[in-house]
Amino acid sequence: MTRVAPDQVRTVTCIGAGVIGGGWAAYFLARGYDVVAWDPAPDAEGRLRHVVDAAWPALTELGLADGASRDRLTYEPDLATALAGADFVQESAPEDLDLKIRLLADIDAVTPEGVVISSSTSGYGMSEMQGSCSHPERTVVGHPFNPPYLIPLVEVVGGEATDADVVAWTAAFYRVAGKSVIEMDREVPGFIANRLQEALWREALHMVANGEATVEQIDQSIVDGPGLRWALQGPMLTFHLAGGQGGMAHMLDHFGPSLLSPWTRLEAPELTTELRNEVVDGCARESGDRTIDDLVAERDRGVVAILRMQGDR
Amino acid sequence: MTRVAPDQVRTVTCIGAGVIGGGWAAYFLARGYDVVAWDPAPDAEGRLRHVVDAAWPALTELGLADGASRDRLTYEPDLATALAGADFVQESAPEDLDLKIRLLADIDAVTPEGVVISSSTSGYGMSEMQGSCSHPERTVVGHPFNPPYLIPLVEVVGGEATDADVVAWTAAFYRVAGKSVIEMDREVPGFIANRLQEALWREALHMVANGEATVEQIDQSIVDGPGLRWALQGPMLTFHLAGGQGGMAHMLDHFGPSLLSPWTRLEAPELTTELRNEVVDGCARESGDRTIDDLVAERDRGVVAILRMQGDR
Repeated sequence: MTRVAPDQVRTVTCIGAGVIGGGWAAYFLARGYDVVAWDPAPDAEGRLRHVVDAAWPALTELGLADGASRDRLTYEPDLATALAGADFVQESAPEDLDLKIRLLADIDAVTPEGVVISSSTSGYGMSEMQGSCSHPERTVVGHPFNPPYLIPLVEVVGGEATDADVVAWTAAFYRVAGKSVIEMDREVPGFIANRLQEALWREALHMVANGEATVEQIDQSIVDGPGLRWALQGPMLTFHLAGGQGGMAHMLDHFGPSLLSPWTRLEAPELTTELRNEVVDGCARESGDRTIDDLVAERDRGVVAILRMQGDR
Repeated sequence: MTRVAPDQVRTVTCIGAGVIGGGWAAYFLARGYDVVAWDPAPDAEGRLRHVVDAAWPALTELGLADGASRDRLTYEPDLATALAGADFVQESAPEDLDLKIRLLADIDAVTPEGVVISSSTSGYGMSEMQGSCSHPERTVVGHPFNPPYLIPLVEVVGGEATDADVVAWTAAFYRVAGKSVIEMDREVPGFIANRLQEALWREALHMVANGEATVEQIDQSIVDGPGLRWALQGPMLTFHLAGGQGGMAHMLDHFGPSLLSPWTRLEAPELTTELRNEVVDGCARESGDRTIDDLVAERDRGVVAILRMQGDR
């Protein structure tokens, strides 16, 4: 068993080196890891180094770990050689289920015993992908957001055959590596953020298809509208503040009926007392000892900063 | 006819002075207008001044117009008196259709001839609300986002009885007042940004109701995930960059099949060639002469700035 402690990982192998895999490589390099990358495409190394070079100024601005260097990136065309020294494997192959199943089995066959294999899949559950692995217990989903070198979120969730220890180890490793981790206790298609993003995206496509909005209007409506709030407080706290001093309780009691309006093509859940209370209580927990006025002031400082930044572009 | 040119407006009357109406009052004061506010609630003036005072630091930071002052706010308890000197009316009453219909008729009856009456409604079409007005042709929707004093977006759309000139005048007025205006050519329930926001919100409520995510996970998933991108480039340009150098065309051709996945409870439209091309062309128009690399660098500078700001909180 060669699985080291989450804070003892030295070498990360990135399987697949496109936008996502290359972005992961850049991130792990910036955090001071040795990175080995494998990708079967003919021009893979050039594209990989392009992604890493493009990411480096932003990573430098945020602060590199001691010893972090792009010189610690190795492109390795042989899969077994790429995986021989891995302490952790991040798989970011194209989103094709058959390909993922075969590739994960190939990775599993040559990766040192016990080393965790984490997939960047944006939608498949690990239960669907791990079936051909000899050691499916060490395969897990670690779903990032583009660009993985800047967006902190990683959603971690195991499949049916994944060890609970592996899920916990993976979440701990990503946290050591500086990520914002959501550890899910069950497989939900699309995980959390992708489901939310996808609901918005599908509605946007419907609007474009129906001539109700242009592509530019879709983007303007978010960038100059709710997008300014979502970078700061998320959809729940955002609506908590839409309720004035009454917070989410007032908001749900006031706007709850609009859930029945044909505002989207997605039907809303019934706003039961239980659901209402769960949302209200969640906002109270998130707020902690911050009053509505505190949250308003916090949001406003953030929006002002983002508006100034938008103005600088 | 007492409708002045959009850049000659001096006095704005805000009908309804809660979170939205009070926010509008603060915004118009900061832009140098005289503001008269009316609200029938017993403690309305105190709440209004609380909202304006809370908004003022952020507005000051962004820069006040010459002569802008909170002293130019008048609370007026009589509706007819409040409207007698209005050059523009912003109605922000509670979201209750019968109330809106009656109130708009009352406003219409005492507002000087030709002066535009704009409703902050977050979901009703003006066609549903203007039926009891003697002069429905000067009623229009001007839908803001909370807080109206900071979020630039205003969606402008008329009802069946609204003059096309009134829609154009209203869009021009908001632009003079510094807003980011989307002028819609048809009534769509929920307008644009609300439909997108509502699709996400409904999916979030489904997830909480089903125990798939907590309130805190919903917010974390957006604030540390796609929310960081949406403040900068919107959902369309965001996905344009998810396609690597191939842009939106590659993205749709690669991820298009995932529209059929059960990632949300909202069914996606069919990705016809026509829809695909419309989205791809829209991204090309938005990009203008900026290459993918330019857009990546722009996004990265923005995300770095937002991450630093989040860290300062």
